Amino acid sequence: MQTPAEIAEAYLAAWNATDGTTRLPLLENWDANARYRDPLMQADGREAIDAMIAAARERFAGLVFILRGTPDGHGAFARFSWDLAPRGGAPVAGGTDIVRIGEHGRIAEVIGFLDEVAS
Amino acid sequence: MQTPAEIAEAYLAAWNATDGTTRLPLLENWDANARYRDPLMQADGREAIDAMIAAARERFAGLVFILRGTPDGHGAFARFSWDLAPRGGAPVAGGTDIVRIGEHGRIAEVIGFLDEVAS
Repeated sequence: MQTPAEIAEAYLAAWNATDGTTRLPLLENWDANARYRDPLMQADGREAIDAMIAAARERFAGLVFILRGTPDGHGAFARFSWDLAPRGGAPVAGGTDIVRIGEHGRIAEVIGFLDEVAS
Repeated sequence: MQTPAEIAEAYLAAWNATDGTTRLPLLENWDANARYRDPLMQADGREAIDAMIAAARERFAGLVFILRGTPDGHGAFARFSWDLAPRGGAPVAGGTDIVRIGEHGRIAEVIGFLDEVAS
């Protein structure tokens, strides 16, 4: 069973993968029917999630998702926060994601929220 | 449709209700099959949730749940943070809860996390 830190690391790696060939193996970690919801984006199923991340990567070119703070979790759930920032630069956005791990040990659901960005 | 602030207010009122007679109408706001998970407690169904809150109220006698910050949300989800504190005193615990509103407009699921308490 993955720890919250491992879940967060693999999750952010998928969001940081700029090309599909790199991203595909990282998305194996997601259930084929995984559901994603945040205030700006939503997707149902691994293919739609791949397309959503691809679109976000184009929009956020040059920016990377960086873990903020320490992931925690209990039972099937992990929680972690992230910043979106240029490498070495100040964050332009931040959020907190709740991940539910499904019966097969893969990500079944993500509920994302945007956080106030420290200026 | 309830706003995240309204959801949080009604939710914390249920957690602050010290007797079942007061709590029962507040739990009408929860689906009969609602699911609750946090690092310390879990319950399935409105009756189990009522019993869980009753037990917590005995353990936390003299303490109240107070909203911290501003609730937010999107789609079916609300997120809000709370402190557990004596009236007018410093918090002894704090957390952030994610609430999913079900198809009938009632709370279908709660995923709770504990936060670091500011000292």
